[in-house]
Amino acid sequence: MCGIFGVVGHPEAANIAYLGLHALQHRGQESCGIVSSNAEELFAHRAMGRVASAFTPTDLERLPGDVAIGHVRYSTAGGSHLKNAQPLAIDFELGSLAIAHNGNLTNYEAVRQRLEARGSIFQTRSDTEAVLHLIATSRAASLRDRIVDALRQVEGAYSLLFQDLRTVIAVRDPMGFRPLCLGILPLSGGGPGGRATSAQPPRAYVVASEPVAFDLIGAEFLRDVEPGEMLVIDRSGVQSSRPFDPRPRRSCLFEYVYFARPDSRLDGVGVYDVRKRAGARLFEEHPVDGARASDTVVVPVPDSGVPAAIGLAARAALPFEMGLIRSHYVGRTFIEPQQSIRHFGVRLKLNPNASVLRDKRVIVVDDSIVRGTTSRKLVRMLRSAGAREVHVRISSPPTAWPCYYGIDTPTRAELIAASHSTEEIRRYLTADTLGYLSLEGLLGAVRDAAPEAGGASDGSPGHCHACFSGDYPVPFARAERQLRLIHG
Amino acid sequence: MCGIFGVVGHPEAANIAYLGLHALQHRGQESCGIVSSNAEELFAHRAMGRVASAFTPTDLERLPGDVAIGHVRYSTAGGSHLKNAQPLAIDFELGSLAIAHNGNLTNYEAVRQRLEARGSIFQTRSDTEAVLHLIATSRAASLRDRIVDALRQVEGAYSLLFQDLRTVIAVRDPMGFRPLCLGILPLSGGGPGGRATSAQPPRAYVVASEPVAFDLIGAEFLRDVEPGEMLVIDRSGVQSSRPFDPRPRRSCLFEYVYFARPDSRLDGVGVYDVRKRAGARLFEEHPVDGARASDTVVVPVPDSGVPAAIGLAARAALPFEMGLIRSHYVGRTFIEPQQSIRHFGVRLKLNPNASVLRDKRVIVVDDSIVRGTTSRKLVRMLRSAGAREVHVRISSPPTAWPCYYGIDTPTRAELIAASHSTEEIRRYLTADTLGYLSLEGLLGAVRDAAPEAGGASDGSPGHCHACFSGDYPVPFARAERQLRLIHG
Amino acid sequence: MCGIFGVVGHPEAANIAYLGLHALQHRGQESCGIVSSNAEELFAHRAMGRVASAFTPTDLERLPGDVAIGHVRYSTAGGSHLKNAQPLAIDFELGSLAIAHNGNLTNYEAVRQRLEARGSIFQTRSDTEAVLHLIATSRAASLRDRIVDALRQVEGAYSLLFQDLRTVIAVRDPMGFRPLCLGILPLSGGGPGGRATSAQPPRAYVVASEPVAFDLIGAEFLRDVEPGEMLVIDRSGVQSSRPFDPRPRRSCLFEYVYFARPDSRLDGVGVYDVRKRAGARLFEEHPVDGARASDTVVVPVPDSGVPAAIGLAARAALPFEMGLIRSHYVGRTFIEPQQSIRHFGVRLKLNPNASVLRDKRVIVVDDSIVRGTTSRKLVRMLRSAGAREVHVRISSPPTAWPCYYGIDTPTRAELIAASHSTEEIRRYLTADTLGYLSLEGLLGAVRDAAPEAGGASDGSPGHCHACFSGDYPVPFARAERQLRLIHG
Amino acid sequence: MCGIFGVVGHPEAANIAYLGLHALQHRGQESCGIVSSNAEELFAHRAMGRVASAFTPTDLERLPGDVAIGHVRYSTAGGSHLKNAQPLAIDFELGSLAIAHNGNLTNYEAVRQRLEARGSIFQTRSDTEAVLHLIATSRAASLRDRIVDALRQVEGAYSLLFQDLRTVIAVRDPMGFRPLCLGILPLSGGGPGGRATSAQPPRAYVVASEPVAFDLIGAEFLRDVEPGEMLVIDRSGVQSSRPFDPRPRRSCLFEYVYFARPDSRLDGVGVYDVRKRAGARLFEEHPVDGARASDTVVVPVPDSGVPAAIGLAARAALPFEMGLIRSHYVGRTFIEPQQSIRHFGVRLKLNPNASVLRDKRVIVVDDSIVRGTTSRKLVRMLRSAGAREVHVRISSPPTAWPCYYGIDTPTRAELIAASHSTEEIRRYLTADTLGYLSLEGLLGAVRDAAPEAGGASDGSPGHCHACFSGDYPVPFARAERQLRLIHG
Repeated sequence: MCGIFGVVGHPEAANIAYLGLHALQHRGQESCGIVSSNAEELFAHRAMGRVASAFTPTDLERLPGDVAIGHVRYSTAGGSHLKNAQPLAIDFELGSLAIAHNGNLTNYEAVRQRLEARGSIFQTRSDTEAVLHLIATSRAASLRDRIVDALRQVEGAYSLLFQDLRTVIAVRDPMGFRPLCLGILPLSGGGPGGRATSAQPPRAYVVASEPVAFDLIGAEFLRDVEPGEMLVIDRSGVQSSRPFDPRPRRSCLFEYVYFARPDSRLDGVGVYDVRKRAGARLFEEHPVDGARASDTVVVPVPDSGVPAAIGLAARAALPFEMGLIRSHYVGRTFIEPQQSIRHFGVRLKLNPNASVLRDKRVIVVDDSIVRGTTSRKLVRMLRSAGAREVHVRISSPPTAWPCYYGIDTPTRAELIAASHSTEEIRRYLTADTLGYLSLEGLLGAVRDAAPEAGGASDGSPGHCHACFSGDYPVPFARAERQLRLIHG
Repeated sequence: MCGIFGVVGHPEAANIAYLGLHALQHRGQESCGIVSSNAEELFAHRAMGRVASAFTPTDLERLPGDVAIGHVRYSTAGGSHLKNAQPLAIDFELGSLAIAHNGNLTNYEAVRQRLEARGSIFQTRSDTEAVLHLIATSRAASLRDRIVDALRQVEGAYSLLFQDLRTVIAVRDPMGFRPLCLGILPLSGGGPGGRATSAQPPRAYVVASEPVAFDLIGAEFLRDVEPGEMLVIDRSGVQSSRPFDPRPRRSCLFEYVYFARPDSRLDGVGVYDVRKRAGARLFEEHPVDGARASDTVVVPVPDSGVPAAIGLAARAALPFEMGLIRSHYVGRTFIEPQQSIRHFGVRLKLNPNASVLRDKRVIVVDDSIVRGTTSRKLVRMLRSAGAREVHVRISSPPTAWPCYYGIDTPTRAELIAASHSTEEIRRYLTADTLGYLSLEGLLGAVRDAAPEAGGASDGSPGHCHACFSGDYPVPFARAERQLRLIHG
Repeated sequence: MCGIFGVVGHPEAANIAYLGLHALQHRGQESCGIVSSNAEELFAHRAMGRVASAFTPTDLERLPGDVAIGHVRYSTAGGSHLKNAQPLAIDFELGSLAIAHNGNLTNYEAVRQRLEARGSIFQTRSDTEAVLHLIATSRAASLRDRIVDALRQVEGAYSLLFQDLRTVIAVRDPMGFRPLCLGILPLSGGGPGGRATSAQPPRAYVVASEPVAFDLIGAEFLRDVEPGEMLVIDRSGVQSSRPFDPRPRRSCLFEYVYFARPDSRLDGVGVYDVRKRAGARLFEEHPVDGARASDTVVVPVPDSGVPAAIGLAARAALPFEMGLIRSHYVGRTFIEPQQSIRHFGVRLKLNPNASVLRDKRVIVVDDSIVRGTTSRKLVRMLRSAGAREVHVRISSPPTAWPCYYGIDTPTRAELIAASHSTEEIRRYLTADTLGYLSLEGLLGAVRDAAPEAGGASDGSPGHCHACFSGDYPVPFARAERQLRLIHG
Repeated sequence: MCGIFGVVGHPEAANIAYLGLHALQHRGQESCGIVSSNAEELFAHRAMGRVASAFTPTDLERLPGDVAIGHVRYSTAGGSHLKNAQPLAIDFELGSLAIAHNGNLTNYEAVRQRLEARGSIFQTRSDTEAVLHLIATSRAASLRDRIVDALRQVEGAYSLLFQDLRTVIAVRDPMGFRPLCLGILPLSGGGPGGRATSAQPPRAYVVASEPVAFDLIGAEFLRDVEPGEMLVIDRSGVQSSRPFDPRPRRSCLFEYVYFARPDSRLDGVGVYDVRKRAGARLFEEHPVDGARASDTVVVPVPDSGVPAAIGLAARAALPFEMGLIRSHYVGRTFIEPQQSIRHFGVRLKLNPNASVLRDKRVIVVDDSIVRGTTSRKLVRMLRSAGAREVHVRISSPPTAWPCYYGIDTPTRAELIAASHSTEEIRRYLTADTLGYLSLEGLLGAVRDAAPEAGGASDGSPGHCHACFSGDYPVPFARAERQLRLIHG
C-alpha cells in the first residue's frame, strides 16, 4: 500500500509535503520520498524507512520551491530497494516530470511488452515506470493530453500525482479504487508564491490520499477527487476535467475496515463511524449467548480493533475494557532466545491485562484474520491470563481473496479463509465461538455511516469487495510471466 | 525515571535481560545497557536510545554467561550522555561489580564530599557512582555486608541491583519508594546453568521493576520485594534478609497514576484497576451537569488516559469514544514550517476525530497536567473539531511539587498547579469546567483496588504523594552546590 | 575519471570484481558499483564512496554468479549523487543489460534530443544512459549488433563494458582514448563455472582499465584491447571483431603523466618508465645552473612526482631526497580554525622535511600545475623550511586546455597556463626558476619507453595531447544547452 | 602506542588540539579524544577511529574554551573499547581533572592492588586510571604537588598531560622513554584569551609528542621537554621544575627506526637523517657482492623503508627505484575470495613494479622484521615480478624482545628473531642474502645525526634498545596476575 501527497503554491512546499507524508505514514513505512520544484528544476530525495528518519533538515533544505509531491510506500513484492522508492523523476521530450502512485495496474505486463518492443528501457519492475514511458512515447502535444493518452492505455487501480516545474496533476482512476482528496491551505501572509491579489486571498492547494494529512498541516478539506477526475493544479487554481469513459464506482471497502486512519473520512464516509457500526452489527449477527455485564467483557485487539469493540460493547451493553495492552516500542530486528518462550511473538506487541480478564467470558474484537497464526496466539494468551471463555468477533467478512488493486495481501495459499470454513478456523484458533461480520453487514455499516441521502444512490454498493467476495471488478493477468528481475 | 531487570541461572541471560528491558522501555528511553557474567568476567554493553536499536545480535553475543542485569534510563538532568548510561561496572578490592539503580539519593552531595575528601574520584554526576565508592571503601568483609554498610549511609529512594561474577543482589529501600518484584522462569531442559537436580526443577530467577517484564519472557510472578528487603540470588536460590531499620512504607503513588504500565501489578495492586476506579471517583467528585448519553461523550487522551476514561464513562453511563487518535509514528527531530500551523505540536501526536466530537459536550480525561500547555492546545483542538463544550477531568490531584525520589518532574516554577488555582488553570485551558480527583479519592481508588484485606493494614495510606501534597517523607538538600560538571 | 572492470567465468565473480575495483580505486573515489549475473538475473549494488567502505560482505553475498562488471567513478560535474553511480542496469526488449563506461561522448546532447523526440525518458544526465537508449531503440536482432549500431551513432572517448546474463562485451573507441586491457585468471580447480575440459584448462577472463587490477587478483595480462576492437567474452572464450571504421590512434597522454598507476603498462608502455624518462629529459631541457650534489637536492611532490624526480636526480647526478612528507591520514571534512594558519591547506597533505631542505638549493618536481595555488603554497613552505632557492620542474607541458574525453579538468578560466606565460607563472609561484617539459620531450619519453620497434610505427605520435596543445582530435559541442537537471 | 597534544591560551583550543592530533595520527588510530576547558567546566569528546571521522564540526563546537588536551591511541591489548579512549576526565577533591598518557607503567599491578585495598574503584584496566587515583588519594595540598607525589610512586615510561580548568601540566618520566616537546603559537590578534600586554605579545603554548604537530598548526618548536621535567603551563607562561630523582636517559631508539614521522626531530636528532645514515651504514656492514648500477637496484618497502633505502643507494652508488608501489586505499575489512590468490595479503598494500625489477638484482630495504610473514611474501612477489636476486636489508637490529614501555609489540613467541638466527630467517624469507644493521651501527647513525657537540656527552648511548638487546632499563612484573577484566 502507498500514500501520496501534493502541494502547489506554498513557499515551503517540501516541508508541507514532509508533514503530509508523516500523517500518511500508516499507509507505508518501507520507503518515502519528495520531489520539489522551484520552477526551474526538479529536486528529489528518496530514502528507505520512515519519514521522520529519512529526511534530515538538510535534506529538506535541498528541496526548494513552492511545488512538491511525496510518496510513502510499503510493498512485500520484490524485496525492499531504494530504487523502488517514489516519486520517480525523469527528463523527457517536454522537460522534467515526477510521478507518485497509489494503486496497481492490472495490464502492466502487456503494456510493458509493447513499450519494450518500441525501444523503451526499464530500470524497475514498477508499473509506475510504464506510465512514464506511455507519456514519453505519446504524440500528444501537451503534458496533460499525454497523461490522458497514457492512462487510457492502462487498467486497474490508480490514484496518481504528476509534477512538472510548475504544476501538479492529480488523477483518480475511473472506478475510484484508491482514495484521493483535495484541500486548501490558507497562507498567513502573501499569496502562493507571495503574489496575493485582492481578488484571491493567499492560499496553497493540497491533495492527499486521506484527509488526515490536511489536519496536521492545518489545511481545510474541500472535497474528494471523483473517480475518473483529473485535476490540473497550478498557482492560478484548480482545473477539473473527466477525460475517461465513465465506469461504475468501486472504491475499496478494506480501507474502511483496516487501512485508513479512523479519523479519516473517505468519499464522505467517516472511517471510525463505519467501524463502530460494523461492531454493533457484528454483535447483532453473532451475539454471545447469555452475556451479562457481570461476567463478560469486550476487549479490542488494539489499535485497529478499538472502534469496532466500542460499537459492539455499546450495542451489547457490555463493559469495554483494554484487556490487551499494546507496546509502543516494538522493534524491528528482534532477538528471540533459543529457549522458546510461550506466546513470544505476539507478546512483543500485546500483553494481556489479567486484572480484567480473570474468570471472565471475553469477547475479543479484531478487524480481520489473515493467516490466523496471530489470532491463535492471542486466544491462547487470553486463556492463560485467566479468561474463562474466548469469543472471537471479526468486524469484516473472511478475507479469502488476494487484492490486485494495491493492497499487499498474501497469496490465496496463505489466507486461512481461502481454504477453511469458519468452524475450521474457530477450531484452529481454539476459540469458544467465532463470528465474522457478513458482507451485507459491512456494506450496511458503510451505508448507515454515509450522510443522509447516502452513498451510491443507484442501490449498487459502489465498492470493491473482491478480497471478501472474489468478485474482481477489473480482470488481471493471473499468470505472471517469468520476470527478468534486476535486484538492487 | 528508570527501569531495572536482573536474571540469574539462565543460559542466555543477556537475551533474557534484553527482553526484560524491552518490556520496561516505557520507564526510560534515553539510554540502556546490560552487564552479563560468565562466572569469570563481566561483559558490558551500553548505548544511547531504545533497547531495540541499541543492541544488535552481535552485541548480545558478546554478553555471555548465565547472570545479567540491565537498565533503561530517562533523565532530563545534565543532558544526555553515554557515560550516564547504566549498569555501571567497576573493579575494586573484592573483584568486579556492576550496579543498576532506579531512584534518587537525597543526601548524595554530602556523601560525595565525604568520599572525595578521602580520595575517591568521580567519573559521573550520578548518585549511583557514590554507592559504588561507599562499597569500595567499606571495611566489611563480604560484598553483601559492604552493600549493607554502604546503603546504611545513604537516604532517599532506591531499588538497586548489584551483580558480581555469580550473584545478583536486589535491594529495595526501607520506605519502598520504587517498585521491585521477583519472578521465576522455568527452563524447558536442564537447570540453571544446566545442573538440574531431582529436588529442584530447572529454573532461573528474575527481578524487575514491574511484572510486565515477566510476562514477556514467560516468567511467573512470585512476589514484590518488600521495602527494606535484600535478596541475594545465585544458582542455589534466593536468600532474603532485612538489614535496615524499619521505616514506614511510602511507595510512589504516581506509578499508579501515570508511570507504570496499566497491565502491571505493584505491591499487590493492579494499575489498570486503580486508574479505572480513579476515573469513576473522578466523575463522582466532579460530575458534568446534565450530561446525557445523547449529547455527551467521554474521550480519553490516549494512551495514558484510557483506563480512567473507561471507568468514568461506565460510572457516568455515558458513551466512551476515541475522540483523539494517536499517531504511532511520532518522530524525534521534527521539522516545523516557518509558516505557523495551528495546534501543530499536539497534532503530531494526537488528531481530533471530528465525527464523534461534532456538536457534542466532550468530557476529556487525562491522568495529570504538568505545564498546562498541551492541555490548552487539546481543548482548543477539540473545540475547533466541533465540540460544543469541553470538560476537562484529571484522574489525579494537581501536580504542584517536584519529585526528589526518582521521577523527572519539572521545577516548581514550571508546574502550573504550583502557582495557580484550579479555576485559574481552567481559564488558562479555556475549558468549560475542570475537575481534579482529590488526594483522598486517589488513595481510595488504590485502596479499593487492593485485594480483600487491603493495603496498609495500619490505616496509614502507605504511599508517597509528595508531588501532590508537598509532604516529603525524606528530607533533601534543597540548595544544590555549584556543580563542577564534566560534560562528555 | 573512471575505472572499469569485468570478469567472466569465475565462481566468485563479484568478489573478483570487488578486488579489481579496489586496484583501480585511484581512477575514481566518488562512487562505485558492481553488477553480477547468475545466468538468470542481474544483481546490482552501487554506493557512494570508496570500494572498501561501499561493499559489506553481505552486499557481496547478494551478488551471485560467475559474470560481473564493476565501475569506480569520479566526477566534478553535477554534484555527487548515487543515481550517477555505475554500472547502470536496465531491462529492455532483449532482456537485462548492464553497462560501465570510462570516457565521454562528445555528441551526447544531439543524440539525447533525437532520443527524447522518439519517446525515450532519461533518469540521469549521464551520456552512458544515452548509449542504453540507442541499443534499446536499435532494430538489429542481436545484442552485439545493437551495440555496434548504437556506438556507430556516438562520437568521443569510450571504453565500455556491457553485460547480459552470460556475456561481457568490451569495446574501446576507434581512437583508443581510454585504456582497456584483457587478462586471464587461472582457476585452481574446475573450469569457469566448473566445466573444465581436457582441451581447455579452467580459467576466467578479465578486462580492466589498467593491468594493476590483474596483479592484485593474480591474473595474467594478455594484451591491450585495440582501438576500435570489440570483444565478446563468454564461457567459451573471447571473440574479437573490429566493427568500426578505422581512425588514427589517439590514446591519452595524460594517463602516463598523472592518471594511471606507475606500476601499470598501457598500450605496451610502462608508466613508471615514462615518468622517469620525462624527469631525465626535463633536466636536460631545463637544467639548474651550477647545481652540485653538495648544495642541491631533488625533491618530489609525493607521490605522483616521485618517478620523475628519481629520473631527474639520476640524470643530474644530484641527491634525491624526500623533502616533503605526505600524510596518510588526510580527512575529507576538515575543520580549519578561524585563526588563520600559514600554508594550512597544503600542510594537511604535505609537510616539509626541514633537515634535507635547510640552506639547500631545492629542485622540486611535480607532474603538472593546474590552478597554481597549491604549487605556490609549496614553494613558500619550502622556503620557510630553509630552502635557499626553489626551482620548480614540471614533467609535462603547461596544462592549458580542458579535456573533453573523460578527465575532469577545470574550465580554461581556472587553468593558470591558459592565460599566463611560464614567466608569469614563475612569478606567481615565487619560484627562482620554473621549467616545463616540452610536448616533444614528453612524447619522446613515451617513445623511448616503448619496446623495441616502438609505438606508432607510422611516425605519428599516436596520442591525444589536447590538454597541452589544444589540438582536439574529435570535435565537441562547446555551448552546452540549458540543462533541465534533476538533482537527487 | 599513543600520541598526546596540549594547548593553553588559544581561543579555539579544541580546534588546535584536533589539528595537532591529526598530525600525530600515525601514533595511534584506534581511538581519539579531546578535553577542553572554558575555565568553568571541562568538556570531553572521545570516539573510536581516526580524528578526521571521530570529530564532527558540531563535536568541536561543544568543546569551548582556551585550554585543551588530546590523545590518539593504538593498543592491541584488551580489545578495542571506547572506555579505553583518552583523555580520561574525573572529578575529585580539588575539582575536575583530565589526563592523557603516552607510555606504560611497569609497577601498575602493585599500585593498583594498594589502591584497591584502600577503597579505590577502577573502571578500566588502564594504568592511566591508577595515576588519577594516586593523585586523588595524595594528601598534598596543590594539584601540582599531588601529581609529583603520585608519579614518585610509579615506575616505567610516561609522557603525561594533565589539565584542570585553567592549566596544563606536562611531565616526562625521568628516563625520557617517550618523546615530548614544547612549542609556541603566535596569535595574530589579541593575547592568549585575548589579554595581550605590551610586555608579552599574544601567543599560545603547545605541547606534543612530536614537533610535526607544531608544523601543521604553524607553531614554533621551542625545545624538547627534558627527562624528569615538569612544565606547569597557564596563561601567564611556562614554569619548569625537576621534582624527580635524576636517572640515566633512556629515550626510545625504535622511535627513530620506525615509529616517529620522518620529518620529526626528537631530542635534537632528525628522524629522517637517522634513517638515511642507518641505510648507509647498513650497506657498509652488509654490502652486496659485485653490485653494479647496471644490474642492481635499491628498492624501499614504502613508506617506512624509503629514507634508509635512499641512504643505502647513495652510499652504494646504486640506482634507487620505487620497485614496490603502495596503494593509498587499503581497506580495513577486506574480503578475500575463497579461491586463493597468490601474494594476496601483501598485494593489497604493495604491488611490484615489474619494469624496474625484471632481470635485476634487487636490494630491498625495510626498517624491521616482526613476524617475517610479510617479508617472506614480499621476497616471493619480487621474484615473481622478475627479480634475479633478492637481497633483504633491514635498517635496525633483529627485533627479539617485547617492549614494556609503550609500544605494542607482539610477544616473544611471535617475534621471529627471538628464536631464529639470521641465517634461519634468511632461509624462511627465501632471500639470497639478509643483513640487519648492528646495534652499534644504529646507535652510530643516531650519534652522527646529532648536532655537533652530540647527544649523550657522557659517552653512554642514552637510549633504550631493549627490543633489540633485551637490556631493559626498568624492571617489570613478568607474570601478569589473572585479570578480572570488564569488557565493554
